[in-house]
This record gives sequence, structure tokens and C-alpha cells, in this order.
Amino acid sequence: MEKIKTSIVGGSGYAGGELLRLLLFHPNVEVQQVTSERFAFKLVTRTNPNLRKNTTLKFCQMDELKSCDVLFVCLPHGSSSKRFEQFKSLAPKIIDLSADFRLNKKDGFVYGIPELHREEMQKTNFVSSAGCNATATILALYPLFKNNLVDLHKTVVEVKVGSSEGGNKFSESSHHPERSGLVRSFMPTNHRHNKEIIQELSFGEKITVHFSATAIEMVRGVLATCHVFLNENLEEKDIWKIYRKEHGNEPFIRIVKDREGIYRYPEPKLLIGTNYCDIGFEKDPNSNRLVVISAIDNLMKGAAGQALQAFNIMHSIDETTGLDFPGLHPI
Amino acid sequence: MEKIKTSIVGGSGYAGGELLRLLLFHPNVEVQQVTSERFAFKLVTRTNPNLRKNTTLKFCQMDELKSCDVLFVCLPHGSSSKRFEQFKSLAPKIIDLSADFRLNKKDGFVYGIPELHREEMQKTNFVSSAGCNATATILALYPLFKNNLVDLHKTVVEVKVGSSEGGNKFSESSHHPERSGLVRSFMPTNHRHNKEIIQELSFGEKITVHFSATAIEMVRGVLATCHVFLNENLEEKDIWKIYRKEHGNEPFIRIVKDREGIYRYPEPKLLIGTNYCDIGFEKDPNSNRLVVISAIDNLMKGAAGQALQAFNIMHSIDETTGLDFPGLHPI
Amino acid sequence: MEKIKTSIVGGSGYAGGELLRLLLFHPNVEVQQVTSERFAFKLVTRTNPNLRKNTTLKFCQMDELKSCDVLFVCLPHGSSSKRFEQFKSLAPKIIDLSADFRLNKKDGFVYGIPELHREEMQKTNFVSSAGCNATATILALYPLFKNNLVDLHKTVVEVKVGSSEGGNKFSESSHHPERSGLVRSFMPTNHRHNKEIIQELSFGEKITVHFSATAIEMVRGVLATCHVFLNENLEEKDIWKIYRKEHGNEPFIRIVKDREGIYRYPEPKLLIGTNYCDIGFEKDPNSNRLVVISAIDNLMKGAAGQALQAFNIMHSIDETTGLDFPGLHPI
Amino acid sequence: MEKIKTSIVGGSGYAGGELLRLLLFHPNVEVQQVTSERFAFKLVTRTNPNLRKNTTLKFCQMDELKSCDVLFVCLPHGSSSKRFEQFKSLAPKIIDLSADFRLNKKDGFVYGIPELHREEMQKTNFVSSAGCNATATILALYPLFKNNLVDLHKTVVEVKVGSSEGGNKFSESSHHPERSGLVRSFMPTNHRHNKEIIQELSFGEKITVHFSATAIEMVRGVLATCHVFLNENLEEKDIWKIYRKEHGNEPFIRIVKDREGIYRYPEPKLLIGTNYCDIGFEKDPNSNRLVVISAIDNLMKGAAGQALQAFNIMHSIDETTGLDFPGLHPI
Repeated sequence: MEKIKTSIVGGSGYAGGELLRLLLFHPNVEVQQVTSERFAFKLVTRTNPNLRKNTTLKFCQMDELKSCDVLFVCLPHGSSSKRFEQFKSLAPKIIDLSADFRLNKKDGFVYGIPELHREEMQKTNFVSSAGCNATATILALYPLFKNNLVDLHKTVVEVKVGSSEGGNKFSESSHHPERSGLVRSFMPTNHRHNKEIIQELSFGEKITVHFSATAIEMVRGVLATCHVFLNENLEEKDIWKIYRKEHGNEPFIRIVKDREGIYRYPEPKLLIGTNYCDIGFEKDPNSNRLVVISAIDNLMKGAAGQALQAFNIMHSIDETTGLDFPGLHPI
Repeated sequence: MEKIKTSIVGGSGYAGGELLRLLLFHPNVEVQQVTSERFAFKLVTRTNPNLRKNTTLKFCQMDELKSCDVLFVCLPHGSSSKRFEQFKSLAPKIIDLSADFRLNKKDGFVYGIPELHREEMQKTNFVSSAGCNATATILALYPLFKNNLVDLHKTVVEVKVGSSEGGNKFSESSHHPERSGLVRSFMPTNHRHNKEIIQELSFGEKITVHFSATAIEMVRGVLATCHVFLNENLEEKDIWKIYRKEHGNEPFIRIVKDREGIYRYPEPKLLIGTNYCDIGFEKDPNSNRLVVISAIDNLMKGAAGQALQAFNIMHSIDETTGLDFPGLHPI
Repeated sequence: MEKIKTSIVGGSGYAGGELLRLLLFHPNVEVQQVTSERFAFKLVTRTNPNLRKNTTLKFCQMDELKSCDVLFVCLPHGSSSKRFEQFKSLAPKIIDLSADFRLNKKDGFVYGIPELHREEMQKTNFVSSAGCNATATILALYPLFKNNLVDLHKTVVEVKVGSSEGGNKFSESSHHPERSGLVRSFMPTNHRHNKEIIQELSFGEKITVHFSATAIEMVRGVLATCHVFLNENLEEKDIWKIYRKEHGNEPFIRIVKDREGIYRYPEPKLLIGTNYCDIGFEKDPNSNRLVVISAIDNLMKGAAGQALQAFNIMHSIDETTGLDFPGLHPI
Repeated sequence: MEKIKTSIVGGSGYAGGELLRLLLFHPNVEVQQVTSERFAFKLVTRTNPNLRKNTTLKFCQMDELKSCDVLFVCLPHGSSSKRFEQFKSLAPKIIDLSADFRLNKKDGFVYGIPELHREEMQKTNFVSSAGCNATATILALYPLFKNNLVDLHKTVVEVKVGSSEGGNKFSESSHHPERSGLVRSFMPTNHRHNKEIIQELSFGEKITVHFSATAIEMVRGVLATCHVFLNENLEEKDIWKIYRKEHGNEPFIRIVKDREGIYRYPEPKLLIGTNYCDIGFEKDPNSNRLVVISAIDNLMKGAAGQALQAFNIMHSIDETTGLDFPGLHPI
């Protein structure tokens, strides 16, 4: 099989860097160009020091981009849609990691969660990767909302997120002495990702998701704790069945719910570097509340890994190609 | 004023050690004895190395306890009530930090949150300190439940807690390579502290609090994120007034809700070593949800500091005596 | 005693903020003004959120400074000496925390380590606080060099430091996802503090100190590991005697060398918020190497605490006033 | 190529678990059995939760071990040599990760650092993996000692290590509230690994290495800071040449010495999960001191990765097979 020529627009950011790492090790891919206006002409290892000895690529400027088969766009939110016409002229296929094309299938983009949109991905040329918090929440709740099992207006979701979610732009709030060890309620209400969640979980109904986000001491990772209220009296074994039915064949979803051991529920640190979404749940014995817990690596399943999974699907390559790193323990 | 003679039962644990530190610096207190069965006859600095050069006390055994004015009991849950008769014979006043006497005023104990039970404390001889998660949650929600402003059955509370909450007994789950950097859903439902919360927030009504606890990378600290649903259409300025009315004169409660800066909401790390409970809130502009956020140091306002505050009240000493450490920044 | 009027120039940085905290709680001090050009007219709690409810002071500009009794200058290195004439016209006594006056008694400044220069401090009006790494190293090695016990040219010192040592100016290198968990050899040779160390340990001889600095995951703290080579065959008990003779009466130095327990040697985290310098040592049984280990809180004994200790000495106030916080455990 | 049958003795520890992960993804290997007395009959994912969905293996007991091609022995120090006869009867090739066979080619074992003993490994059946701290130190200093460039008795080495180096046995000293954020001088002198270092760097001469070890806040990783004193006046470019000559062709050694960026020297966190040893250096402009800095992941290049690299060499498989993970950034 001839290698697929790919270029990355915006390769000095965290998602772009992670994508570069994945593409360099993908057997069917050739990385043609990686852009960075700020670091143009410098080695890509300037911002991706982990890749030393694995590549001698240098960043180029966006204006130097040549035609390729697939363009991965990792620009800041708002920058991507402005250049969409330029990008379309460069490559027949575009996978965009910003928030610009996630809502309402804008410009024909398929929403990038493969577990929900695999068939559409097989046919499309444009995929818009989902927000990391949205990904964790949607994968956690999809089986319940799809099967109409929960109260549509009482769900409360609280995500705990790491510092890499904010990208590599430094500020007072990301300064280590301030950011270290903190538990920052940075978005108690009104998070942008909420619209994605509602779009994907509505199934034609009007729904409400009460969403909050808290930043904690962690670099990579999202843990979503989702409190839903069941419409009928389901037991845990019933819920097992539903999750198995909806997610049981997914290569990157693991149901994690152990009776013993110290990792009984999804744990983001075990997922660092992996494309897994681990999902667990516990039914409150005293009420109709079900707590669903999901964990991902925000730069992998929440960004670059998800994008590569979509890429594989779009090219009929085995979906797990280049994504088989199992994660580390201890870490 | 003659010094009040105090002894600590169980001084080698974290709450007991913290209490010892506070008592050693309290101007009206003499620390008479500190017990530890495991470390009997060793210096108290063996388990409290921060106190080197501040005391030459040694641990004694429980059987060696002499009469004193106030006995602080810091035994594991379940051990304290078994020895209650013995303790009563040793001291007229007892402040217990275990869970044994928290519910239903057992044996005449006053529930130990001063902001709710100050007047009863002035008259009692027995105070039972509240659970740390319960303290953070109750102080956050008391103004709302007392004034009957929220739906009584929809509240969802998620606390994020540090590793010291588990005490100083080591295990596989507290082993550093495992515990470091984790986000462990250790109690998605069914947490013991929930009963305390319901007891204190009921005001004669039947209420439900959907409570979950998650352990995060932190040694000291609790952050409670409380999602409540308002009965009427209150604006943020109305909520301000209610919190000011209920908590405005409290020496250890601060309403934290800033428009700028990087500490706009309560942050546990700023409270390390202090007796403050910081409380903030944000109203969801798109629903009737109000998110109330509170932070404490679990070993201080959540244990030893709360106990000393009660002690001060019981002895008509200025409530802030020995508790004026303001916390550190950066940390 | 009438309160001593003090002002802080540069109160929005970490050392200035820590000094503000200490001065607010010092019984003999009135804080008159605190300057910050960047945050002028804002509450000092904007950058020192730990002080909420403890002060309503606002930052002023440097040009607004009024006369006072003591001026604490916490400006960046290089800025302080440029304004020295202005500062002298405002206050009879100046304590400077920058590096500008540390070497060669410049402009009559006494080098700010009280343990070495207490008598000079009692007579001077100008004190220049020592560098934090220099303080840890000098206090560790002073007894040995003063008594001429070590090879003068073979000493190797490696300090491990936290992120607050770099101040509150954020940058790519202090960005949390980059700085978190790192072990950065940021100054393998050629550290500026080395000149201070040599100045204070020379005793008329030419000496060499091979100094390296490594940044680790920590916000506050310095641990200096000093490898010295003994001139004669001293046993550990001999070394004990020497340290007791030189440091035994110092209120803020503790010799830490335990046979059991988990804190057998100095540990910076136990010193967070304290003015202690803990010193321990171990003699290599197979060579003439002695490893001396010292720990401080860089913002306290390494900056603001040391400055306040000098202040107390300059005013014949008990040296420990305002500095008696013992530190926390666990933390 | 037929798959090589391997078994792991002691697979519930950290090194054994890491080895299991590597072997499961090695294209030429079949994992036959993994033993654990404590977790016998349980899934290997009980102690290696990262491997969920990647294996359904269960632990067996040591007595159940069958014949295989290669036995990896990951038992605690002291246990391995006692059972050597049994292990020899089970497999023609043994790779031992304990300290039992590292010194003096005991029982014919080749010391396990491939960069020094590659040719011997091609011919032997027994390899003894090196200690992690020894590995970092030896690889850093080998070019200098081999070429007789440094004073043989003045070298000072200080390693900074993470908590996983202590294995998975929990204790008071590994309890998270105690171990978190600490800088513990756990072995100022007299470290066991020193003998390995001396064995490998002696080249027929008597040498001294002054070794100290400090535990810091980190799970995986070793940073060795080595202070050596040059015999002749070498400049940095000369040193570059020597390192290039000795290590330039090594697949797992990278010389890291950048003029700009925030990762100018070796950084252990970039190596998490990789088999690299990164080495950098800086010449003191004011003396003949050269500071050589090296970093590894203690569980990979310092244990399981090193063992697999030896395995590849012993079987004439490309040395990097199964070891090509490049590490993550940010992390």
C-alpha cells in the first residue's frame, strides 16, 4: 500500500505535537509537512523533545504548504474556519481538531467520535474532532440517552481536567507555583463543550445537561463523573447489558467496574498515551441515581488519537493501527 | 487566666497530630498528655516531625491517662464510643473527632460545626467534630436549605479530597506510585458523611443529597462542588445577600467570588493550615442551577481546627485564638 | 512599644507577598504601604489571595511612597540599586531582598544571614538578604569551613529547588504542563549564588565550591546536598559536637539526624511556611567524604523570614517574633 | 520465525509488570506463564490494570512453571539466586532482574548493560540486568573513564529517583501523604549500586565514586548528576567528540545538549515508557569540573527495557524491536 501523504497545520501545539508522534509511527502514513508560524525553520523537536532521534523534520510556514492527501488542522479555535477554502484547495480530505466545525455538521463536517459516526466517516472527506470533555461525557452517556433510560433534564456532569487541556500558551494561571496542586473551579457553568454534548445525546428530544469543569493537579487526563437519574428501576446487571450492547465491540472502550483492587473504576492516569475511553458506573442503592464515570487522555482519545482513529476509518485501515499503546503502570 | 489542662487520646494520627500543634501554640492551654499505643514512650516528634524544637513531650499509653480539664479524643471510628465511660471519668469536657457521636446527639454530644451550633456549644460538655466532607458541604448549603430556596431532592454534591483524609494507615491504595496523580472515584455513592449532611440540612423536611467523593492528587484539602436547583428565580446579587446574612459575621467563613485574578473561586491549597471555609457560587445563566463551591483543609476546619474552635467557644475564649494562621501563597 | 512603620517596595512578587503576610501578624509592626506598579490601586489580596479577610490594604505606586521607619525592598535584581538614593531619603533603615547589595558589603550593607552577622546587624541600618540557595549552603557548611576541617577545593554542592524560586513571572519554562514533574538541570555550573557562598565561607583562604542547581517538582523549598572531604578522621560524634557548638543556640537551626522514622534527614516540605533551616549529615564509612544536607523554605528562611529575623535583630525585638509557625505535617 | 516462548517469574511487581507489557507487544515472543504467589489464579490485570483488553492471562504459582525458551526472573533481591538451579532446569536462557548476579560475573552471568557488553550477550545464556541508578551513572561516565580522562577518586554522583524504584511493597515511607512532594536523602552514602558502578568503570584501575541518592516527587525516572574532574583541559567540543565516538551509534542513547528551548538537558519525564538513556554535559568555565547529566526511566532502561534489549541481542533480533515507544510530551 502506498503511503498516505499527510501534513499537519499547527504542529507546535500539544494536539498537533501528539498527532505528529502518532503519524510518524503509523505504517501507512508519510508526514510531509508540519507548520508552525512561531517556530518555522526550527526542528520539530524544539517543541516535541520526545521525538529526538525519531525525526529530523523542520517546521514550515503555512504559506509553504504543498498538496497532500490529508490535512490535519490543529489551529486555535476560530482560526481554522477562516482558512477553510485554502485548506480545501490543498487536500481532498481534512480532519480538523478545533471547535470550528463541530456543531450542526457545518460545511459538511462529520462530528468526530467514531463510536457514534463510524458509517458517516467511511463516506466523508471532512471530520471535525470532538472536544475532549465532550468526548468523555458523550461516550459515558450515549448508551443511556440512546435507549431513553434517564430523566432528560436532571443530568449533572462534572469533569476533572488536567493542565494540558489549556494548550501550550502560558499565562499567570498556568504558572507552575499557582497551578500546582490546585483544584480550580474554572467553569462552574456555561462551558462551550456543553453544546456538543447536547447535540450528540438529544436523539430528537430537548435535553438539559448541567455541566461543570474543575481543573486539578494533572497534566493529561479527563475524568467525567456523570450523575443521571433513571426512568425505571434498573439493576446494575441490566446496565451492564446495555453498555455491553452499545460499546461491547468497540476497540477503544473498556467497561471498568471491578469488585477488588485499587483501580475499580476508570482512572485517567492509566490512560496516558492511549486511545482508550474507560467507562464504569455505580448505582446508588438509596435512589434512582446512576453515577457513570469515564476517563480519557485529553490529547489522545480527546484529540489526536480520536483524529487518527477517524483517519483510519476514512481510509479503511484497521481502526487500531498506530493506536495500540496500552498505557503504563505505575505512572 | 490559668491554663486549661488538655490531653489528646490518639495523638499519632493526622488529626491528633494537627491538634497537638495547635494546642502547643494556644496561649490558654497546657498539653498534659498525648497517647499512642504504637509509639508509647517515644517523642511525639517521631510522628510529628514538624514539631521538633517546639516540644519534648513523649507519647504515653491510654492506661496512663490522668485527669484533665478537656480530653480530645482522636481515635479511629468505632473505638471512641467503646471507651466513653472511661473518658468521662477522666475529664469533665470531651471533644471527640471520630464519627461515633455525630448522629442524633448521641450521648448528649453537640454536632461540632460552630457556625450552626454555637449556642449549644456554650452550654455543653461534649462536642463531636463533624466529618470533613460533611463540614464543607453543610457550610456551603446551609444558607440555602435554611431559607428553603432549593429543590429538596435534586441536589448533587461532589467532593474532591486529598490523601490525608484517609489517615496515616498505609495500604496498597495509598502507596505513592499508585496514589500519585490519580483521580479515584472511591465512593461514587453511599458515603458515610451523607447522613450528617442530611441531619444538618433537613430543617424538619425530608431531603435527598446525591453525594459522590473523588480522591485527587492533593495531601490536604476538600473542594465540594454542590449543584442545587433554585425554587425561585434568584439572581446572583440575591444569593450574595443570603450568604452575607447567614455567614457574614463568621470569623472563619469567607465568600470568595472574584471577577478577575486566578483565584476567583474557593481553592483548597490556599487554605492549607488554616481554619477557613471559603465559599463561592455561580448561577447557571441557562437554568435554575446554582453551583456552590466550598473549600476547607480537612485536617483543620475539617477536624482539628474545628475542634479547637469548639473548645474556644466552650471556654468563652475568643473563637479565633490559636487559629489565626492565614495560609500561604504560593504553595 | 509604639509600632514600627514599615513599607514594602514590590509587594506583588512572591517574596514581597510573603513578607506582607509576616508583617501583618507581627505585633510590633504597622504596614504603611505596599507598592506594585502593575497592580497599583488594587487590593493586595489580588496577588496574595491567602490574606483575604486579613487586610484591606491596596497597592500603591512607588512614587506615592511616604516616609517610614523601615523600607523592605523586594524589587527584581538590578532595579533596587538604581533607586537606592530615593529609598534612603524615605527611611532610615532599609532591608533589601534583591541580589544587588550582597557582595563586598556594597554601600555598607550587612550580608543578611543572622547566624553569621548578628552583631553587625544590631548596629547597621542596611541589611541585604542572602540568596536562598546560598543561605542553605552557607548554614550547612559554616561550622566546617570556619573550623578549617575540610579540603578547600573539593566541595561539591547540589541544590534541589522548587518553582517559586523563579518568582511570579510566567514563561514557557514555568508553564504547568512543562514544569510539572520535571527534574531540570537548569544551572549545572556558573550559578550566581556561588559568589555569596565563597564570600561567606572563605575565612581569608581561597576556596572552591563546585555548585549545581536542579529544579524539581516542588513549589517551595530548597534541599542542599553538600559533599565535603574532611582533612582529618572525624567520627560522626565529633561532627555533632562541632555543629552543636556553632549552631546549637540558634533559634532557627535544627540538627536533624534520626536513627528511625521516615524523616531522618532534613526535609523541605516540613519547613513550608517556617523560618527553620534543618541540617543533617552522614559520614561515608568508606572514605573521608561527609555529606551535609540542609533544607529551608526559599521564601521564608531564604527570603522574607530571614529579612524579618534581621528586622527583629535591628530593633532588639525577640528574634523569633512573628516567626514561630512550626510547619505542617502531613503536607 | 517461530515465536520464542517466555515466562516471567515474579510478574506482579513493577519490573515484572513492565516486562509483561513489553513482551505482549513483541512480535517474536509468546508469553507462556507469569507467576505471582500472592495473586496466583487472578488475572494479570489485577496488578497491571493498564493491560485490560490486551490479555486474559492469569498468574500462576512458581511451582507450576513449565519449560520455556527464556525465563525472565523478577524476584526480590536474594530470592533469585536461591532458586537458580530450578530456573536453569526450566529454560536454557535466563535473564535476571535482581541484584543477585550483577557482581563478578557470578554463575557466568553477563552484566546487563548492552552498550558495554553487547558482544558477550550474543554468546551467553545468562544476563543479569543492571541496577537502575547504576545504569544511568555508568552510561553517563563510561566514555570518560574508558578514555582515562578524569581524576579517578574525586567523582561525585547524585541521583534523583522516583517512588517506583522502591517497588510495589507499601510502607509508612511510601504512604502518599508522607511521600508526596518530598526530597528525601534516603541514601547519602553507602548505596548498594555503587559496587556495580565501580566494577564497570574501573578498567583495571582502583577508582572511587562518591555516590548519593535522593528520592523526589516522581513515580518513574532517574536523573544522575555526575561531577567529574578532568585530567586535561578539554573543551566542550572535545567532549562532544568523545561521547559521539563511544555512544554515537547506540540506538538508545541520545546526547541532549541544546542551546535553546526548555529541555536543554536530559529530562526523565520525557523518557517515561521509553528505553532511552539521554546524556548531556556542561563544562564549568571556572574549573576543571565537568557535570554529566543522564536520565532514564528506571522501569524501562533501568529494568524491563534493558532486559528486553538484552533478549533481542541474545536472539539476534533487531535490538529496538518492541522498544520503539518514543515517549510523550507534554506529560
